Amino acid sequence: AVIVNGFVCKNMKMVTANDFFLPGLNKPGKLNAQGSAVTPVTVRQLAGLNTLGISLARIDFGPNGGQNPPHTHPRGSEILTVITGQLLVGFVTSNQADGKNLLFTKQLVEGDVFVFPQGLIHFQVNNGKVPAVAIAALSSQDAGVITIANAVFGSTPPISDLILAKAFMTEKDTVDWIQAKFAPAMSGN
Amino acid sequence: AVIVNGFVCKNMKMVTANDFFLPGLNKPGKLNAQGSAVTPVTVRQLAGLNTLGISLARIDFGPNGGQNPPHTHPRGSEILTVITGQLLVGFVTSNQADGKNLLFTKQLVEGDVFVFPQGLIHFQVNNGKVPAVAIAALSSQDAGVITIANAVFGSTPPISDLILAKAFMTEKDTVDWIQAKFAPAMSGN
Amino acid sequence: AVIVNGFVCKNMKMVTANDFFLPGLNKPGKLNAQGSAVTPVTVRQLAGLNTLGISLARIDFGPNGGQNPPHTHPRGSEILTVITGQLLVGFVTSNQADGKNLLFTKQLVEGDVFVFPQGLIHFQVNNGKVPAVAIAALSSQDAGVITIANAVFGSTPPISDLILAKAFMTEKDTVDWIQAKFAPAMSGN
Amino acid sequence: AVIVNGFVCKNMKMVTANDFFLPGLNKPGKLNAQGSAVTPVTVRQLAGLNTLGISLARIDFGPNGGQNPPHTHPRGSEILTVITGQLLVGFVTSNQADGKNLLFTKQLVEGDVFVFPQGLIHFQVNNGKVPAVAIAALSSQDAGVITIANAVFGSTPPISDLILAKAFMTEKDTVDWIQAKFAPAMSGN
Amino acid sequence: AVIVNGFVCKNMKMVTANDFFLPGLNKPGKLNAQGSAVTPVTVRQLAGLNTLGISLARIDFGPNGGQNPPHTHPRGSEILTVITGQLLVGFVTSNQADGKNLLFTKQLVEGDVFVFPQGLIHFQVNNGKVPAVAIAALSSQDAGVITIANAVFGSTPPISDLILAKAFMTEKDTVDWIQAKFAPAMSGN
Amino acid sequence: AVIVNGFVCKNMKMVTANDFFLPGLNKPGKLNAQGSAVTPVTVRQLAGLNTLGISLARIDFGPNGGQNPPHTHPRGSEILTVITGQLLVGFVTSNQADGKNLLFTKQLVEGDVFVFPQGLIHFQVNNGKVPAVAIAALSSQDAGVITIANAVFGSTPPISDLILAKAFMTEKDTVDWIQAKFAPAMSGN
Repeated sequence: AVIVNGFVCKNMKMVTANDFFLPGLNKPGKLNAQGSAVTPVTVRQLAGLNTLGISLARIDFGPNGGQNPPHTHPRGSEILTVITGQLLVGFVTSNQADGKNLLFTKQLVEGDVFVFPQGLIHFQVNNGKVPAVAIAALSSQDAGVITIANAVFGSTPPISDLILAKAFMTEKDTVDWIQAKFAPAMSGN
Repeated sequence: AVIVNGFVCKNMKMVTANDFFLPGLNKPGKLNAQGSAVTPVTVRQLAGLNTLGISLARIDFGPNGGQNPPHTHPRGSEILTVITGQLLVGFVTSNQADGKNLLFTKQLVEGDVFVFPQGLIHFQVNNGKVPAVAIAALSSQDAGVITIANAVFGSTPPISDLILAKAFMTEKDTVDWIQAKFAPAMSGN
Repeated sequence: AVIVNGFVCKNMKMVTANDFFLPGLNKPGKLNAQGSAVTPVTVRQLAGLNTLGISLARIDFGPNGGQNPPHTHPRGSEILTVITGQLLVGFVTSNQADGKNLLFTKQLVEGDVFVFPQGLIHFQVNNGKVPAVAIAALSSQDAGVITIANAVFGSTPPISDLILAKAFMTEKDTVDWIQAKFAPAMSGN
Repeated sequence: AVIVNGFVCKNMKMVTANDFFLPGLNKPGKLNAQGSAVTPVTVRQLAGLNTLGISLARIDFGPNGGQNPPHTHPRGSEILTVITGQLLVGFVTSNQADGKNLLFTKQLVEGDVFVFPQGLIHFQVNNGKVPAVAIAALSSQDAGVITIANAVFGSTPPISDLILAKAFMTEKDTVDWIQAKFAPAMSGN
Repeated sequence: AVIVNGFVCKNMKMVTANDFFLPGLNKPGKLNAQGSAVTPVTVRQLAGLNTLGISLARIDFGPNGGQNPPHTHPRGSEILTVITGQLLVGFVTSNQADGKNLLFTKQLVEGDVFVFPQGLIHFQVNNGKVPAVAIAALSSQDAGVITIANAVFGSTPPISDLILAKAFMTEKDTVDWIQAKFAPAMSGN
Repeated sequence: AVIVNGFVCKNMKMVTANDFFLPGLNKPGKLNAQGSAVTPVTVRQLAGLNTLGISLARIDFGPNGGQNPPHTHPRGSEILTVITGQLLVGFVTSNQADGKNLLFTKQLVEGDVFVFPQGLIHFQVNNGKVPAVAIAALSSQDAGVITIANAVFGSTPPISDLILAKAFMTEKDTVDWIQAKFAPAMSGN
């Protein structure tokens, strides 16, 4: 079997339309602790995306504050469309020359489109009273996701609490408290 | 003003969240002669997409055969999600070693995802009895669209009917007949 | 054996000058039904092109209208040089903002160079009385070729005539007529 | 003046060796609140880097815990060399299939080289008793820096404490406490 | 005027077929001191090549040893076709693990194709008794040319003869002798 | 084992911090005939660099003229930092429109940074009385090195002395003399 980019590249004679197909994006995912669910459609789920430089995700949000918490995509930009409901979205710029990190936020309703540039920390929150659904497309076949809180406070093994206390200018106890919440057993995704 | 990729790159101090925002994708477009409507969200409509390598379109399909006719995107791959209704979709491979061009088709329903590799001729047809809506993401900030019939039979000025008659192995009169249908006055898009 | 891009990457100790060599581009190809012949020099014929981002083709044209019919290269731009004879060449832009597809044509003679941007539909016709020969270079090791008429009217299996009739704003019978001409048995290339 | 990538591209007749030169990387920077100082050499400081896909930084670390706190580079990978002293370094993977974020750490001494893949959260801590110095090269002319704590808890304007409390599975008061520490007046970098 | 890549990008309404056209590649260039002439077709001569990633050159060779001396293209690979005559061609690999630089050579005749990978030192010599002509395509709109002898021994100002004597393991007098031959007044190209 | 870019891509479960680590850059290399030593840190030495687009080298220079002789990197730009001592550095442009190759030189001292654009011939000479050390980063995981003198006068097998005599506008005897110095047995690197 020929491997390209680490994924099998089928012999042309064996290829069928199903290699470019994935069903089920009409079904909500199971909400996580923050009240959101990401259903990914990357090259890992849909082999035909290999070498094509694009992927997708459906994102579900529970009502009254369900959130897709601050995260980054290390290898892709994102363009999001609100299919149902309303979302407060935002992203933070990388460090500016004056030492600031600018937050840009926007209240979105059904049919609104918003863009999150590659690698920037961003989030989406359902501040409506009904569930919300969005489709997010990414400029990579496998853009990756780094959920900031999980990666910083819930890594395996944990980052030293002394290091994080200094980084977040807080007490070691506070770090321990947050880390306990993100202990691996709880970090379902 | 700084120009990057031919588009204005705003001074950071002037940037606002609206530069990354476009409303209105919840509204159907006006159907064309083939019964479809494409509402694009490229860098031409949404400036914040500049350099980000991604764009979007909403596609509406009238019932009973509304189609997005055979076309290509010269600079991008496409990943399509059916939001409402059902679609018969297909793409044709580039010339194979045995001289064939393989057609891959798939019947899609709500929530189905399908991929069209860069530059290949593809189409979508609503073979249901109600309107259909899809969201298509493209791996370029401005992937371009070439509607095959319009480009071949409706260009300005027209391609010589002698050339097309030989290319399509048909009569000059048949080419003239089709070209008359695509006279520029009619090729609204 | 190490595979890169789907092609074998020889151990350096086994590499010889022949891996970067292909003879025979001085010989005309066998003309097809449209009076042209393409002799490709891509990574499929010349292994040393792997990862180098370039390829080549010799194109022969019969006299009095031999044509390389409208086609696209999904993964490359083309720069063509007329070696012998004369050619009428043209390409059609992707859809413009005003709904038009602009045709640019040029009469070429020996020693003339012309450029066809990536993914655009283009053609070359020998409108002279003697055979013509051109060398075309492409900005990819395997740019692909999509002959429009073959892909649209001669695919395997065929695209539904109902779909094509609507796309080309013509009758089902006309589509059937053209499709019959491009039945796979005849679509040698 | 010709602008390329948003930066002036000098007329060749005006170019001198100084356009490719920057002095001063032998001097330590001024340590910030976490005990580190980054002296960047990007296209913003050294114009000749434009289009070259590489940049550099000197990083100074105070003794006994001076740290370059968890951060990402949205547009580049990093290769770091310890010039003086010792460093504990680490990075966290993007979310894995099992929901984990793996932490990889390594104790470095003088002459050790370590790699941080693009977009991943990473940090360096001087766990020695004398100052440490490192040279970090990045695979972009302007890779960007996002200091996680500053971007999440010190943005301008701040991210809602309700959103962050849910994201970090902690109390609103704890968020307020950390945010107060990162109020813009203090976030010099 | 919009500038892209440092070159003017015409308004679409002003574009004509001539922007993609250059005549004259059927005419031999004027041979230089080594008995060759390169007639380039890059974005500098043919504006329509901008952003297309490809360019071309005609190379003429005088009989009995006319040569295109050892040179590199810093930004492109080359694929060469012999149109008339015969050529001895060769390229040298970059430094191998065993400290060697391997030379690959091939005797070419009319219709032969040969590939020179990006950045490697290569040459072509007409070892026939009649003039030779080749078409060389390059994988960049402006691949650049570095003629090794001119750059090393004929730069403006010259490289110190002490430095070159050590580099070429020869005497300062020998370097002076060669440098005198390449004094700028003589280095026409 | 999955191969990407010709290098093994480890299963994530087997990856450790050591895959991103290489020790020993604090130790000087063994000086070659020109009085320099390059200690490379490319994907060939440090597997974790695969796909990351960056690499490194330590360069040592003996006192009083130790040099890293004129060379190119066919696949990368270089940014160099002087760690210890002083260096005279320079690069030569590709052929300019007026037939010149411009030399840009700069005297560097400790802490100075200098940039060498991709593919251009460049050199560094220690014109101080004590050893010098530099760190050079390159914009590729494996940028390659072509030492001009070795590749031109010391290839295996040698380039014909007749060809080189004409290229360097010198006598065959002079070429033979230089080639004898670079006979493979002596070209240690």
